[in-house]
Amino acid sequence: MHAYRSHTCAALTKSNVGDTVRLAGWVHRVRDHGGVLFIDLRDHYGMTQILADPDSPVFAEVEKVRSEWCIRIDGEVKARDESLVNAKIPTGEIEVFIRDIEVLGAADELPLMVFGEQEYPEETRLRYRFLDLRREKLQENMKLRSDVVASIRKRMWDKEFREFQTPIITASSPEGARDFLVPSRLHPGKFYALPQAPQQFKQLLMVSGFDKYFQIAPCFRDEDPRADRSPTDFYQLDLEMSFVTQQDVFDTIQPVLQGVFEEFGGGRKVDADWPQISYRDAALWYGTDKPDLRNPIKMQVVSEHFKGSGFAIFAKILEQDGTEIRAIPAPGGGSRKFCDRMNAFAQKEGLPGMGYIFWREADGGMEAAGPLAKNIGPERTEAIRQQLDLGVGDAAFFLGGKPDSFQTVAGKARVEIGNELGLTDTDRFAFAWIVDFPIYEKDEDTGRIDFEHNPFSMPQGGMDALNGDPLDVLGYQYDLACNGYELVSGAIRNHRPEIMFKAFEIAGYGEDEVRKRFGGLVNAFQYGAPPHGGCAAGIDRIVMLLADEANIREVILFPMNQRAEDLMMAAPSEPAADQLMELSLRVLPKE
Amino acid sequence: MHAYRSHTCAALTKSNVGDTVRLAGWVHRVRDHGGVLFIDLRDHYGMTQILADPDSPVFAEVEKVRSEWCIRIDGEVKARDESLVNAKIPTGEIEVFIRDIEVLGAADELPLMVFGEQEYPEETRLRYRFLDLRREKLQENMKLRSDVVASIRKRMWDKEFREFQTPIITASSPEGARDFLVPSRLHPGKFYALPQAPQQFKQLLMVSGFDKYFQIAPCFRDEDPRADRSPTDFYQLDLEMSFVTQQDVFDTIQPVLQGVFEEFGGGRKVDADWPQISYRDAALWYGTDKPDLRNPIKMQVVSEHFKGSGFAIFAKILEQDGTEIRAIPAPGGGSRKFCDRMNAFAQKEGLPGMGYIFWREADGGMEAAGPLAKNIGPERTEAIRQQLDLGVGDAAFFLGGKPDSFQTVAGKARVEIGNELGLTDTDRFAFAWIVDFPIYEKDEDTGRIDFEHNPFSMPQGGMDALNGDPLDVLGYQYDLACNGYELVSGAIRNHRPEIMFKAFEIAGYGEDEVRKRFGGLVNAFQYGAPPHGGCAAGIDRIVMLLADEANIREVILFPMNQRAEDLMMAAPSEPAADQLMELSLRVLPKE
Repeated sequence: MHAYRSHTCAALTKSNVGDTVRLAGWVHRVRDHGGVLFIDLRDHYGMTQILADPDSPVFAEVEKVRSEWCIRIDGEVKARDESLVNAKIPTGEIEVFIRDIEVLGAADELPLMVFGEQEYPEETRLRYRFLDLRREKLQENMKLRSDVVASIRKRMWDKEFREFQTPIITASSPEGARDFLVPSRLHPGKFYALPQAPQQFKQLLMVSGFDKYFQIAPCFRDEDPRADRSPTDFYQLDLEMSFVTQQDVFDTIQPVLQGVFEEFGGGRKVDADWPQISYRDAALWYGTDKPDLRNPIKMQVVSEHFKGSGFAIFAKILEQDGTEIRAIPAPGGGSRKFCDRMNAFAQKEGLPGMGYIFWREADGGMEAAGPLAKNIGPERTEAIRQQLDLGVGDAAFFLGGKPDSFQTVAGKARVEIGNELGLTDTDRFAFAWIVDFPIYEKDEDTGRIDFEHNPFSMPQGGMDALNGDPLDVLGYQYDLACNGYELVSGAIRNHRPEIMFKAFEIAGYGEDEVRKRFGGLVNAFQYGAPPHGGCAAGIDRIVMLLADEANIREVILFPMNQRAEDLMMAAPSEPAADQLMELSLRVLPKE
Repeated sequence: MHAYRSHTCAALTKSNVGDTVRLAGWVHRVRDHGGVLFIDLRDHYGMTQILADPDSPVFAEVEKVRSEWCIRIDGEVKARDESLVNAKIPTGEIEVFIRDIEVLGAADELPLMVFGEQEYPEETRLRYRFLDLRREKLQENMKLRSDVVASIRKRMWDKEFREFQTPIITASSPEGARDFLVPSRLHPGKFYALPQAPQQFKQLLMVSGFDKYFQIAPCFRDEDPRADRSPTDFYQLDLEMSFVTQQDVFDTIQPVLQGVFEEFGGGRKVDADWPQISYRDAALWYGTDKPDLRNPIKMQVVSEHFKGSGFAIFAKILEQDGTEIRAIPAPGGGSRKFCDRMNAFAQKEGLPGMGYIFWREADGGMEAAGPLAKNIGPERTEAIRQQLDLGVGDAAFFLGGKPDSFQTVAGKARVEIGNELGLTDTDRFAFAWIVDFPIYEKDEDTGRIDFEHNPFSMPQGGMDALNGDPLDVLGYQYDLACNGYELVSGAIRNHRPEIMFKAFEIAGYGEDEVRKRFGGLVNAFQYGAPPHGGCAAGIDRIVMLLADEANIREVILFPMNQRAEDLMMAAPSEPAADQLMELSLRVLPKE
């Protein structure tokens, strides 16, 4: 017989009754039923009930075992009494009577119980992650993560993509976030950097003729930690293709991601229609470029109805340039209590409040209620109702000013309203491509033009477009939103050196500066660069959505804590003096 | 029609004759045949001949294109004249007459030709890697690498392993080589390290109950560069299993690797019998723990024949303790010229030389030739010949002393003899498990006992063995040798804290020191650790063997040069002053 096990803890069924078997695993729980010891023995695959009574030759040893000891037992498979069958687990019809036992690894007193649902502080969980990971939920999350990544790979291979590994110890590439640096020992005073993403390398691969690249790529950004972001390394499905349009990229990635969500969504609905929404429409309709389309609410411009109306605040706002009044329709929100609560929500978010109208039954007819309705009068109120397609029992909220001043709060209010009114279908994954991002934005304070997103994107209209108003230039640049999160980001790249230099010039970077920052890439573009584009999808985010977790640390095996420390492995730590010496470095004294 | 291509450059056949098609790719070569321009248009998939004559509406534009320009053409598929068919390529029966052309990316004068076989200095190749990678051999090597890694993953999944990603920014773990450090911005003066291997994490995964883990894992060692080693990051197939014996690990990995070599070996023979050879036998028989079993030569101890013999040098050596005389049989090496050449080889390697005997025909019988044969006389010579099973036309070489003093050179001589005599079958992959590595070794100068290999291995015999002579303790530790290279290294781990502390104590490390260095792992072992083991296989090495390349830079997309620099991306580089400030670091002035 094998030294440790003849079967896993999920394998034995009624057909094994009478067999002598060997099992190994962890003591999940021990119960003493009148001198008979029942142990749930757990391994990666499942659980088997084992037992011993004083007739067992090793009863005294069995009495000694405690929770989370790792043991090996030999025993005889017995059918459970009909009344004791547990239909919930595959091994529920049998139990194993222990004839021999070996303690493979005893356990000290546990700082964290694996059995049961008790909650523990995050610091405890991370310090004893090896125990935390034994718990069912984390076991499932990690298996899910592994299976999702495997499924993505298979789907990419099926589309004739090859996975290539790009360098991890490489050059600093100022792409937006902060680099992690790695001091060079052979070149004192010089540093490598860990890649924020394999952006330049995947573009170089296209210039090298590799046509279809993907990678489950580790990415590194030295950012301040928060719940939905790893403070050190994280993974992306990174892909790039040559000779493609934006639509080709969409047609490639949609079936991959849709397939993954269908495969692992646990029966939740996965939308097959992925609308393309312009960045500007998304801002208007949803107040965000990461809209949650499970929420059916779509905001509208209702400025016309307030121009010169009796609601002086809005009428005055509209006299200024660049202002608008927008409405958030709230079907089913037609009560003063609800409207007041939402108004308070907007105030908490820093706005003066939201005006509202709600419609209720009165004398067998319909009545528009709320101070705003009174101020603008019945005709305008009715016109608004008709535009928004609302009726008895519904409400609408109104925000006014320059869109930038209220858009974000409007977006949050839309989410809040959708959730409060139960309009948002939680058993569903809804996707939208956000397209036509502007290439540039203007800093309101300095008046400076800078890149809105990514300096590597091709401007729609090419060089001609760059000769007009920069703020009108849109890029072949896109995000994929899912349930209110950004899941994918990508672009058709600017592969023409002359257009690239011009694009950078508009943002204030001279040719020398561009060559200094992105020399590898710019140089390569001068030797026959193909048109190319691609995207990157956040693996951690996909798994969080599928596992229904809000904290990224629930889907990473060994995460850092919020101070970017690994308490279990004691990282970061003080280097040895000779390590610093070898690197020609000195740590500055604390101020 | 698609914006860039209706077909790839490998797709068109006779069945497309008459079709109007669109192709995109690189200008591989231009030929002018009496006013007709022939262009080989190349993409990732293949090559298509396109042509234009003065009848083409875009002839003037076609005349402008040069090698490695990236172009898009529209044209009409025509059958080639029977005499011009190229049977070697799939598109060899057709050509495309150009009706429209668009230059997608022009190219400056080329520092490196893609077409042809010209050799370039490594610095040129790495600086213009994006051109170098367009060359056929590198395209093939990179595809091979990608396909090998994909095949390994599929084979591991089939064996019910899951892939898990372990942290890359983590704790320093003194495992032998030098760590790359990463300064922490949030914790000034503290450093993370990049993992030399995921050793501790994969063991923690076993303690966490994950049973079967693998990862195509990036590993980082700050080592001085050499041809067969990447100076920064490299990849391993890393795997670990719980509740297993050494044989279980062998039975798991052999079919995976054997399968990969069969799949990608290009018809070369792949041995199915992987013998297990003890470390001590390997040293004796092959002079190395990485034997090349394609070479049939096996060394033997022949001390008996020299004891008290007329060959005074050997006879004297044998009077000392711990000495041996070993023979390298050389079937087919029976000429004075060959024997002298091998003797010179040993001298070049730093030995005084190798004694030899060779057997030749004389007067219809056999004669043993060489001074050594004369010194020891015919009886001893004949006994040696019989032991080594040699005859007319063969030779044997002899080395004596303490084995440590000549073993390495003996191993090299064995390789040289095998190659020179054509005994080594080059069209074959031969594997051997090297087992029973000693846990400890003694430093001859200091007399200190230290770990021979890896301090995490389980000693054979457990605690009892550690109570005897440390130099007699063998470990459950193993390597896989293939064609003279170490392909895999692994062990059954020491999962019992008390045995671990004892093992470290013998090597001079107290419990405090062990807890400080390996605290995460040692702590975890105190909470129910399962027996576990695994191994790691070098991906770069596997691909090098399959691609028949001697330099690791031929199988890595963007390798560093021998000074650990990336000339294309300019890494490492001087950091910005504010980057150093943020990290609280100062670079020491050069001495």
